[in-house]
Amino acid sequence: MAIDAVIPFKPKNPKTRLSCVMEQEEREAFARAMLSDVIAAAQAGGCSPLLLCTAPYDRPDARILLDPDGLNESLNRLLATSKSPVLIIMADLPLADGAAVSRLVSTAADMAVVPGRGGGTNAIFLREPSRFRVNYYGASFLKHMQIAMDAGLSVDVVDSFRLHTDVDEKEDLVEVLIHGRGEARRCLESLGFTLSIEGGRVGVKRGAHK
Amino acid sequence: MAIDAVIPFKPKNPKTRLSCVMEQEEREAFARAMLSDVIAAAQAGGCSPLLLCTAPYDRPDARILLDPDGLNESLNRLLATSKSPVLIIMADLPLADGAAVSRLVSTAADMAVVPGRGGGTNAIFLREPSRFRVNYYGASFLKHMQIAMDAGLSVDVVDSFRLHTDVDEKEDLVEVLIHGRGEARRCLESLGFTLSIEGGRVGVKRGAHK
Repeated sequence: MAIDAVIPFKPKNPKTRLSCVMEQEEREAFARAMLSDVIAAAQAGGCSPLLLCTAPYDRPDARILLDPDGLNESLNRLLATSKSPVLIIMADLPLADGAAVSRLVSTAADMAVVPGRGGGTNAIFLREPSRFRVNYYGASFLKHMQIAMDAGLSVDVVDSFRLHTDVDEKEDLVEVLIHGRGEARRCLESLGFTLSIEGGRVGVKRGAHK
Repeated sequence: MAIDAVIPFKPKNPKTRLSCVMEQEEREAFARAMLSDVIAAAQAGGCSPLLLCTAPYDRPDARILLDPDGLNESLNRLLATSKSPVLIIMADLPLADGAAVSRLVSTAADMAVVPGRGGGTNAIFLREPSRFRVNYYGASFLKHMQIAMDAGLSVDVVDSFRLHTDVDEKEDLVEVLIHGRGEARRCLESLGFTLSIEGGRVGVKRGAHK
């Protein structure tokens, strides 16, 4: 049986830190494109996507669970009653691929985790979900390591830049244009984003809409 | 025979983008501490460290090659005459570990590469070094992929955040304090750096010198 890959998703007004380079509708389209890449990676890694949405949303390649509550509250309700292994993976990881997801869910430990940049947590695999609870926001990676230790769970920190790279800010778009291979990259290109090199540093610039 | 791990190193006035939080002597000590972690990772991954230094420098755990020329010029001279596999790994990767280096040097491809954040290249393993030449600076990852393609070399992009995380700016110090396990982390702690959380974002602050 495929492992449930729970993907929290906010369909309305997501990724506000990209407001400097994208209108709200564009941010919503880009968030959906990143989600498509995460769904494809989860499936390629042997998981069955289950979207945990804060507002009504529908798509053919994933089951949907609607829960307008906060991220921690809704995830912890779900974990508490889960009887089989669960992967929690964020929706803003457009470099994710099946190989990285496979490494995560094939861990020999009780739990596997991939940190995000800046202390966050981008993916957590739990063999027995009811033994763990999440605590996102701030330095959540350190909080999750502590929760695992308190629960007596062995933890494997999986070394993947593809799952480590979450996209929140304009600078992060560089990574999508260089390493992306899916919908998020195509979305950025269709919005007119290209790489720019100024003073030896790589950034992005936005040209005319295509 | 151990694979040569060539580590370019600048002993004098390195890491100038950290000038906002460290004096020159502190930056030099921190650069040496990061180098120690890279040397240890290279050794743990089965490689023999060879420092390519721009100025006289000595340490007991690595061989030294002095070459005040530019990075590309000195590396390409070295590659052109190398008869056995070579790993080139940057000195500012304090999260590097033996497992990541092992994955890199055990690739089945002609060449394995780990991109840095922002389009850089943090590590390159070359089975036949004389078939390749480096071209660092700017979006070097894309340049290196093109050079490999032009030379007919198969390339494995190794998915490691430990080798992807190069430390150039104040924000990067967060990663060292969270994920570092060696000398660089100890150096930052001895300089009084700690994590700080402001408005949900994780940063570093510097307290009194210890």
